[in-house]
Amino acid sequence: MSPSFPPEQRDLVDLRSDTVTRPTDEMFEAMRNAPLGDDVLGDDPTVLRLEEMAAQMLGKECALFVPSGTMGNQIALACHCQPGDAILIEEEAHILYYEVGAPALIAGVVSWTLPSNRGAMDPEVVDRHVLRANLHTPGTTLLCVENTHNRAGGAIIPLDTLAAYREIGDRRGIKVHLDGARVFNASVALGVPISEIAKHFDSVNFCLSKGLRSPVGSLLCGKAEFIDKARVWRKRLGGGMRQAGILAACGIVSLNSNVDRLADDHRRAKEIAQAVCELPGMSVKLEEVETNMVMVDTEAPAPEIQGKLAEKGVLCLPTGPNRLRLVLHADIDDAKTEKAIEAFRAVAA
Amino acid sequence: MSPSFPPEQRDLVDLRSDTVTRPTDEMFEAMRNAPLGDDVLGDDPTVLRLEEMAAQMLGKECALFVPSGTMGNQIALACHCQPGDAILIEEEAHILYYEVGAPALIAGVVSWTLPSNRGAMDPEVVDRHVLRANLHTPGTTLLCVENTHNRAGGAIIPLDTLAAYREIGDRRGIKVHLDGARVFNASVALGVPISEIAKHFDSVNFCLSKGLRSPVGSLLCGKAEFIDKARVWRKRLGGGMRQAGILAACGIVSLNSNVDRLADDHRRAKEIAQAVCELPGMSVKLEEVETNMVMVDTEAPAPEIQGKLAEKGVLCLPTGPNRLRLVLHADIDDAKTEKAIEAFRAVAA
Amino acid sequence: MSPSFPPEQRDLVDLRSDTVTRPTDEMFEAMRNAPLGDDVLGDDPTVLRLEEMAAQMLGKECALFVPSGTMGNQIALACHCQPGDAILIEEEAHILYYEVGAPALIAGVVSWTLPSNRGAMDPEVVDRHVLRANLHTPGTTLLCVENTHNRAGGAIIPLDTLAAYREIGDRRGIKVHLDGARVFNASVALGVPISEIAKHFDSVNFCLSKGLRSPVGSLLCGKAEFIDKARVWRKRLGGGMRQAGILAACGIVSLNSNVDRLADDHRRAKEIAQAVCELPGMSVKLEEVETNMVMVDTEAPAPEIQGKLAEKGVLCLPTGPNRLRLVLHADIDDAKTEKAIEAFRAVAA
Amino acid sequence: MSPSFPPEQRDLVDLRSDTVTRPTDEMFEAMRNAPLGDDVLGDDPTVLRLEEMAAQMLGKECALFVPSGTMGNQIALACHCQPGDAILIEEEAHILYYEVGAPALIAGVVSWTLPSNRGAMDPEVVDRHVLRANLHTPGTTLLCVENTHNRAGGAIIPLDTLAAYREIGDRRGIKVHLDGARVFNASVALGVPISEIAKHFDSVNFCLSKGLRSPVGSLLCGKAEFIDKARVWRKRLGGGMRQAGILAACGIVSLNSNVDRLADDHRRAKEIAQAVCELPGMSVKLEEVETNMVMVDTEAPAPEIQGKLAEKGVLCLPTGPNRLRLVLHADIDDAKTEKAIEAFRAVAA
Repeated sequence: MSPSFPPEQRDLVDLRSDTVTRPTDEMFEAMRNAPLGDDVLGDDPTVLRLEEMAAQMLGKECALFVPSGTMGNQIALACHCQPGDAILIEEEAHILYYEVGAPALIAGVVSWTLPSNRGAMDPEVVDRHVLRANLHTPGTTLLCVENTHNRAGGAIIPLDTLAAYREIGDRRGIKVHLDGARVFNASVALGVPISEIAKHFDSVNFCLSKGLRSPVGSLLCGKAEFIDKARVWRKRLGGGMRQAGILAACGIVSLNSNVDRLADDHRRAKEIAQAVCELPGMSVKLEEVETNMVMVDTEAPAPEIQGKLAEKGVLCLPTGPNRLRLVLHADIDDAKTEKAIEAFRAVAA
Repeated sequence: MSPSFPPEQRDLVDLRSDTVTRPTDEMFEAMRNAPLGDDVLGDDPTVLRLEEMAAQMLGKECALFVPSGTMGNQIALACHCQPGDAILIEEEAHILYYEVGAPALIAGVVSWTLPSNRGAMDPEVVDRHVLRANLHTPGTTLLCVENTHNRAGGAIIPLDTLAAYREIGDRRGIKVHLDGARVFNASVALGVPISEIAKHFDSVNFCLSKGLRSPVGSLLCGKAEFIDKARVWRKRLGGGMRQAGILAACGIVSLNSNVDRLADDHRRAKEIAQAVCELPGMSVKLEEVETNMVMVDTEAPAPEIQGKLAEKGVLCLPTGPNRLRLVLHADIDDAKTEKAIEAFRAVAA
Repeated sequence: MSPSFPPEQRDLVDLRSDTVTRPTDEMFEAMRNAPLGDDVLGDDPTVLRLEEMAAQMLGKECALFVPSGTMGNQIALACHCQPGDAILIEEEAHILYYEVGAPALIAGVVSWTLPSNRGAMDPEVVDRHVLRANLHTPGTTLLCVENTHNRAGGAIIPLDTLAAYREIGDRRGIKVHLDGARVFNASVALGVPISEIAKHFDSVNFCLSKGLRSPVGSLLCGKAEFIDKARVWRKRLGGGMRQAGILAACGIVSLNSNVDRLADDHRRAKEIAQAVCELPGMSVKLEEVETNMVMVDTEAPAPEIQGKLAEKGVLCLPTGPNRLRLVLHADIDDAKTEKAIEAFRAVAA
Repeated sequence: MSPSFPPEQRDLVDLRSDTVTRPTDEMFEAMRNAPLGDDVLGDDPTVLRLEEMAAQMLGKECALFVPSGTMGNQIALACHCQPGDAILIEEEAHILYYEVGAPALIAGVVSWTLPSNRGAMDPEVVDRHVLRANLHTPGTTLLCVENTHNRAGGAIIPLDTLAAYREIGDRRGIKVHLDGARVFNASVALGVPISEIAKHFDSVNFCLSKGLRSPVGSLLCGKAEFIDKARVWRKRLGGGMRQAGILAACGIVSLNSNVDRLADDHRRAKEIAQAVCELPGMSVKLEEVETNMVMVDTEAPAPEIQGKLAEKGVLCLPTGPNRLRLVLHADIDDAKTEKAIEAFRAVAA
């Protein structure tokens, strides 16, 4: 284990989020050896290399390295829309739910929030809510999709649903953006190349800092013209960083060495889910464990269970009064998975 | 009939909107005699008198005269919320649907759009969507209600539903705003004083220019401190007008002489509805004709029917591919009502 | 005198602003007889006629009736610029100084404020401050000019200076907007048609409610495409009004019957200036009295003199600790001018 | 030299900016050993330690780590001001000149731009431009200062001028923010503790990524309540980063080991300036070389000289048609300084 863990934390089983992973030895090595430049001046070779890799993997013309998924998403909105436009978005999407109201403030767009089946909006419902601009009505110019869907427990949006969104986008003349913070989890779980998902979207934002283990950073991908505009917005929002190659070096390791291993996180999520759903006072919908998250419904109040688990060295977060979310990631190996299961058993007993 | 009608239009039956009414003789007389000042400098006595009348009728501390319902609504949002806050609003509300995206642009708020039963959002659904602000999630600070509801065909939101909204507002610490463009129609149809509706809201905006017959203007009502802030926003948005007393004089006539007559509009709406629903190829849900609007579902495409009615001197607007909206107002008397019915009969034949 | 004056005010000499004028009998007649429609639906014939007249007089393709000069100006900024652009503007211009920060809030533009010689920015200084957009620097896209200049005491910007601004606009690829709230005063004082001034600008906003005596309203003029966008912004800001023809009818009277008489205001301004500058403790720069305003520098604190004048029935406003502004307008005839002079003499004695 | 240099660049003398410095060995070591957490969840111990260090050094209650100086500045504006407020700022300040119009877009503030003597605005001019809010005029709520001043060639704003700004802030009730991207250069050059500069400001933003050599990051410092609000804005703008401790570890090294050495940059700047000002066709105002920048005025067009220098392996940037800017920093040692001087001599010959 990396020395970057404070000693007292090395035994913790931290299932709060996959954002808590520490950089790997390979990443530290990469940081040490990366050629660096000033990315704001456009000459950090490591950032440029990462951006090319990402664009190529996703099948897009260009990519832009940004400090966070939030920034990548908000830049996408600002580049696709004009102030006063309308967007369609799932009602618990990260872009709306966890980005402190940024869509109105930065892009200046109004949102229509749509219900979903575990993150997947019904294409017919989407289609019906597309508005044509006139002197009174704001025109819909963007549909936002999240895959996998965080608040739906890492749910995968089916490929044919994505295709239906694309068809709506083409037919109605609106852009379609993917908040793909965890889109590599979908790709690995479905066993399809990431480009098969990305091809349905005008822009895709994905995070290096979740299952892919990088300490910091996301990539916004799209057409060259779109990325040119995005670069201005990144500067405006304060996302231009100097020797960003330090972080990009980790990102390259993420893409080279940490994609396939997401399958282990998915397997361990299912193991925990299977074990927990047999315990008294707890339940898990097994068919909903599609990637690296497990939603546990508890008879007792969730914060109470959370506290008891913490006493046993297992950390997780409630997402409702009787619901806990467990997130698997690279710092949770089989031993820690077993430890988590045992903690649940002890608490349930 | 007022000479303000161009001669060729005096026989038209204009059911497009209740906003098309011409000022009455009494209004022209009032304009002529109104003491005027410069309302931007705060000394137009006629505006001040209208604002006092409105505040008193609604049971609010103060009122502010604004050039349109759109401005009144958007000022209310800007005064109740901080940029980045969340609002809850019915998914076809005028504030969102017909004000060209202003809520994001002016107040800077993100919107959660809720489904409804003819404009009435389920209070439990409202309650469930109130978000508490934290480092990630925008806090909900405002609930917007529309009564009567335009796109729901002039539907009245029941009083106990309004009370439930108020209770949510108090319990969850959020403001509740009424877009009451046509709230006097609700008051007259229910037979309750306007203050019985207004009391459930922190702010109410209502229009003088619809059923109340004034040429221009709306009033935003609320607490003194709220109106002080609203006055700054009115100036910022360009709503400060000079001898606004010209318009306010009509508004005073509206409130004094044109409220009770809304009952005639409601009666005539029912008469048309009753007649039309008996025609082949057309239907009206009679129980949904609550105030001055009639929604006619047509087997033939609505624009086709619209065109045929226009040839017979009856104007109306489609609100869907097979739906026409008819709006009754002061310039439609019994004779014109009868003329409209005959035009429908001829078209249906 | 119009009955619209409250009796107790009919003897007041109100020199606070030319916005305080009451409508004329001819205007009341015009309101009474104007064909009206619903301008939000685009069918108020009187508004359409006024817009055509204005466009023709100024030599522009189209015009749009708006409730205030503030709204006309702010719409122009929003239509000419993108959020994040830079504008150049005189440091005491109404757009910045008296519109409560609207340029940042509505158009989202940053401002570079330039010094001036009585409202006239040095074209070389303007040219030097035009910024070319790059990844760091906001691009300058608009120059705003005010003519006559309010805070400079009604000063006229010379025609060759306007031509120089136009040349900069063409050469540097930026738009030039005129806040012409009182541009008719400049036209009359210079003895040139209004179109000779307007031709230097991409857009011109002028007010009907100041020297031109209308109760309410301004006109924004420019190319057809620009006005199409402006119409959307007018709706968004809440400037769409219903039977706006009531107001437009007055505007037509303003343009037909109240332009030439501005010369009387200018003559009376010079008369007051001449008289006041001979009084002890007061001074006026006579060469700076170019149109309908007089700036009086007072040895005693301006509010003290203001108070003493008010006791004698003469109202005016301070614009600095030792400066009073007097504004001539149609409700100040020769007799009232004489009365004002006598009040000043009494106060100075 | 760090392996992070691409081999072909190791001999380059890069004077374009002090932002181009590569991390030191000590920094790589610190990154490797830093305890890490998820800073968005608030538990990255290295970030917390850096924030405490920074706050203590500057004498402020709290600090917040942000990805760039631009973000730190824009957050400060958003926290100190309300949309529609006015700010006062030097006319070539980074906040306005190099942040792509963000102040209008994010904080929604209008700017009055003031002239200066090499970055130092005259306090009397500042005082005269403070506006009191009323129904028409936006209130001034913030004064922005830049020290050292970038476009003024690294000029130091005198301490008594800072004190005068503070006095204005207190007397007029407005906040004063320091864009201290290079404030440590001022502190070292003046020989006063950084807290002696910071004490005059309500908030200070400084960069770790310039002379202090860190790859990425800035710190915004101020009162606890201010930083609480700033944290929300950081999230909203997408500045929340996960294992930001990687970067913070470098920042700690910056503050511990890289402040005093700024004196070497200043000495070398003077050496280059002295040598260059003796060359034909070039001049430098020696008394203006106060910190780590040298402004060279060239008779020949600056881009031409820039090109010739580049052929000799010396990089710099023009800041005007006949002006080049040279910036000293930690990757320019005495040997490279000498090499730069020789390149200038060769080009001048």
